[in-house]
Amino acid sequence: MRILGIDPGVATIGFGLVEAERGQLRMLHYGAITTAAGLPLSTRLLQIGTDMEALIAQCRPDVIAVEELFFNNNITTGIAVAHGRGVILYSAEKCGVPLYEYTPSQVKQAVVGYGKADKHQVMDMTRRLLRLSAVPRPDDAADALALALCHARSATSLLARVNPAVKQTI
Amino acid sequence: MRILGIDPGVATIGFGLVEAERGQLRMLHYGAITTAAGLPLSTRLLQIGTDMEALIAQCRPDVIAVEELFFNNNITTGIAVAHGRGVILYSAEKCGVPLYEYTPSQVKQAVVGYGKADKHQVMDMTRRLLRLSAVPRPDDAADALALALCHARSATSLLARVNPAVKQTI
Repeated sequence: MRILGIDPGVATIGFGLVEAERGQLRMLHYGAITTAAGLPLSTRLLQIGTDMEALIAQCRPDVIAVEELFFNNNITTGIAVAHGRGVILYSAEKCGVPLYEYTPSQVKQAVVGYGKADKHQVMDMTRRLLRLSAVPRPDDAADALALALCHARSATSLLARVNPAVKQTI
Repeated sequence: MRILGIDPGVATIGFGLVEAERGQLRMLHYGAITTAAGLPLSTRLLQIGTDMEALIAQCRPDVIAVEELFFNNNITTGIAVAHGRGVILYSAEKCGVPLYEYTPSQVKQAVVGYGKADKHQVMDMTRRLLRLSAVPRPDDAADALALALCHARSATSLLARVNPAVKQTI
């Protein structure tokens, strides 16, 4: 199963592609879509949609895992991110890829085993689980890989619940 | 000039097409795109994008006037509307139609002449300016027509400022 994790935004959209087969996890690709701050919002949104469709065509994911919008104190930033996230969900749906949403605490729970883990613990466990020599940069790409891992581990857990024998191969 | 006003949303997106020629205003079309509450957000966003592109192809607007997101107390609703608004801006940009954004108080100022006018005053002035027998329904469509009128009157004012003779024909 090829899982494309997406960390939504307008200025930077992190992505990370992970292959999960029989409990084995492998990083295939990661990076970020970026848009220029000086451009009108509509121009940036068109670029996000176009780049997302190209990314999906390139990565051929079986599923997309996207972060649920976490509401911090900055409403203005939250509203801008929601515009970008709208176009990301639209693009996934247009390409016919099943979409799963995870909260930041679900990602922490699945990757670190603790829903209140800090950012560095999540990044370090992401690096370890994917056997990478360093934490991927930018942070948005590392967050996207963590989302893909969250889906892989959630999906495996679900499978394990159905068939307990699967758990032993993890 | 054909102006398509859009009142953004996820459940209901109001639209209103107005023709403004030499100070004459004429309503050409209005209505609403609606999406079903039970569907996943991504499915609703794909429908909004698809319907927006069809609407733009049908209406052939010279410009689109869209409401700036007004932040009320309901953050959850605001975030959902921002997802829909992101797809609306994306669709306008994809179709190559110039986009203008207006705040609710700019619409009130342009249509009623008073930035703190209430909703009913805006609707009644919209009806009068377009010489309609009744206020259009749903409210979202009336709001969209008011946005189109706001652009028409703002654009005319700008023109009038450049060439004072134009003002006499309004």
